[in-house]
Amino acid sequence: MSASNRRVLLKSRPQGEPTPANFDLVEAPIPEPKEGEYLSRTIWLSLDPYMRGRMSEARGYASNVELGDPMVGGTVGQVVKSRNPGFKEGDFVVEQSGWQSYAVSTGAGVTKLDPNAAPLSAALSVLGMPGMTAWWGLMQIGKPKAGETVVVSAASGAVGSVVGQLARLHGCRAVGIAGGKAKCDYVVKELGFDACVDYRAAGKDLFRELRAAAPKGIDVYFENVGGAVQAAVLPQLNDFARVPLCGLVSQYNEMQMSPGPDWRLLLVRRVTVQGFIVSDHFGEMEGFRKEVPPAVKAGRIKYREDIVQGLENAPEAFIGLLKGRNFGKLLVQVSDDPTRK
Amino acid sequence: MSASNRRVLLKSRPQGEPTPANFDLVEAPIPEPKEGEYLSRTIWLSLDPYMRGRMSEARGYASNVELGDPMVGGTVGQVVKSRNPGFKEGDFVVEQSGWQSYAVSTGAGVTKLDPNAAPLSAALSVLGMPGMTAWWGLMQIGKPKAGETVVVSAASGAVGSVVGQLARLHGCRAVGIAGGKAKCDYVVKELGFDACVDYRAAGKDLFRELRAAAPKGIDVYFENVGGAVQAAVLPQLNDFARVPLCGLVSQYNEMQMSPGPDWRLLLVRRVTVQGFIVSDHFGEMEGFRKEVPPAVKAGRIKYREDIVQGLENAPEAFIGLLKGRNFGKLLVQVSDDPTRK
Repeated sequence: MSASNRRVLLKSRPQGEPTPANFDLVEAPIPEPKEGEYLSRTIWLSLDPYMRGRMSEARGYASNVELGDPMVGGTVGQVVKSRNPGFKEGDFVVEQSGWQSYAVSTGAGVTKLDPNAAPLSAALSVLGMPGMTAWWGLMQIGKPKAGETVVVSAASGAVGSVVGQLARLHGCRAVGIAGGKAKCDYVVKELGFDACVDYRAAGKDLFRELRAAAPKGIDVYFENVGGAVQAAVLPQLNDFARVPLCGLVSQYNEMQMSPGPDWRLLLVRRVTVQGFIVSDHFGEMEGFRKEVPPAVKAGRIKYREDIVQGLENAPEAFIGLLKGRNFGKLLVQVSDDPTRK
Repeated sequence: MSASNRRVLLKSRPQGEPTPANFDLVEAPIPEPKEGEYLSRTIWLSLDPYMRGRMSEARGYASNVELGDPMVGGTVGQVVKSRNPGFKEGDFVVEQSGWQSYAVSTGAGVTKLDPNAAPLSAALSVLGMPGMTAWWGLMQIGKPKAGETVVVSAASGAVGSVVGQLARLHGCRAVGIAGGKAKCDYVVKELGFDACVDYRAAGKDLFRELRAAAPKGIDVYFENVGGAVQAAVLPQLNDFARVPLCGLVSQYNEMQMSPGPDWRLLLVRRVTVQGFIVSDHFGEMEGFRKEVPPAVKAGRIKYREDIVQGLENAPEAFIGLLKGRNFGKLLVQVSDDPTRK
């Protein structure tokens, strides 16, 4: 056990794109659990685009991070000291410890992990929040029907990869949009999507390449990115298309409002657009639990992790995430995972 | 019976705003019904904003009007000659005869009207397509809950007036947006809305006046107009707001796509926007028939008609409709209504 608690604090609010100067890496004493609490050592920290919103003062989903506070984030940890009868030393837990190497918790909202069921880190990707996001948005808003075409942006990412594979399992044509040949190859060859369009290579031909990949038009567009990709997708929506609006990562660093599409398109084609946040729906995951973990176990849903070593590298990794530099679910390994060889 | 069939044909497609030169008033022989058909005399012609779309070549809801063909439209008529055993001389019918004083029909898609149940013209407003539009959009997309705030644009119109009255009947705060003091007074004093904002008088204060009228924010925005009104409404949507997207009349004459709102607003507040067209849902009107006609009969839902005399005045009336010049459901009286004194 290290002698101190390393923490990444929000030092200043970004103006546009975050920079390393917005973060502060500090060392603090390891906290002592009070009666009813436990202390955990963080093993895995999840980095996700939503964190950009938490760095702002602007009205967002949830209370934003205060200056001087640690950045928030989902984590997997191991209990190292406990004064809570529900948690014993050695237990693995999924919690919201944020960007720090130790944290105390009362156990509220915490789930224990069986280390034999799946790799610990999967609780932060396909079996956790990103997987639930993919499942809920696709199934509850997208409502894919066999034979339809489902397009998903950020297709090699933690959410997009699950969306496309679920769409295939439900008999749909799955078309990904991703940045770069390596990601597109992965999406088609490893994950089994029917097609993938490289938006970086396509440039101004994005509309046309997408048309070729989705020749019958688009019935479901799972939106993760916004911007130019969205502009190429929306005119290709079919009548009665559904758009689960999950993220707009290409716009998160914009200081000004940027215009969206003309609503006449949504009207004439009778499109449904629904913004959602998975945390509103954690109580509606029975279908997820029935479908996704067994499919992962059976190899019908695959996932990929992009692992960065060391909490000190979290800011740079996060800045890259907003630019699509990661390839797979971005995780920071904060300390040793005793279940991995 | 007149000696000829007066018809208004689409002469040319409008570039932007329609003008009288886009229409052609012609006289043609009265058609003869074939075996299985009947001939009807048009009494009432409904003028509705959707007709602007039918004048364009642009991809729209339905097959657009061909040059030289009569303009389409819902009508109430009376059978004057029949070779169809289902229809006899004197029957009143709701049909789609378009902008002409006589038409033959096989009876497909036609409903017979009981002249004692309600005024004939109500079949084109509160008891017909506009009433169904209001009910379906509000109840099936808006899903108003008692205590919520429902805002509707074009509030004194055929659709908006029913939306607000239904919202009140379901225990909501109903706030209208309309152009001019007379319409706003009508909406509040006659229809019983809780408040109405005059967007013309408000000008740049529209946002602030709407805030005063909807102090708890907006849970349902029934969208009929788009443009500047929409821009004032959307930032005031509450989390989980629903937006039945019924029309964008302020944008119908625009030749270029006009930008919509930044989707970050829809994402962060988890808003649902759904474009719809009532004709997709004519088979789902059981709830409408249970709720609206009895409420109209009991005086709990009121309606107002703006009647223009003579088919020759239809083009000008329609051009005015797109500018909000009508006050109530716009109807053209094409010929005598024997049930009206």
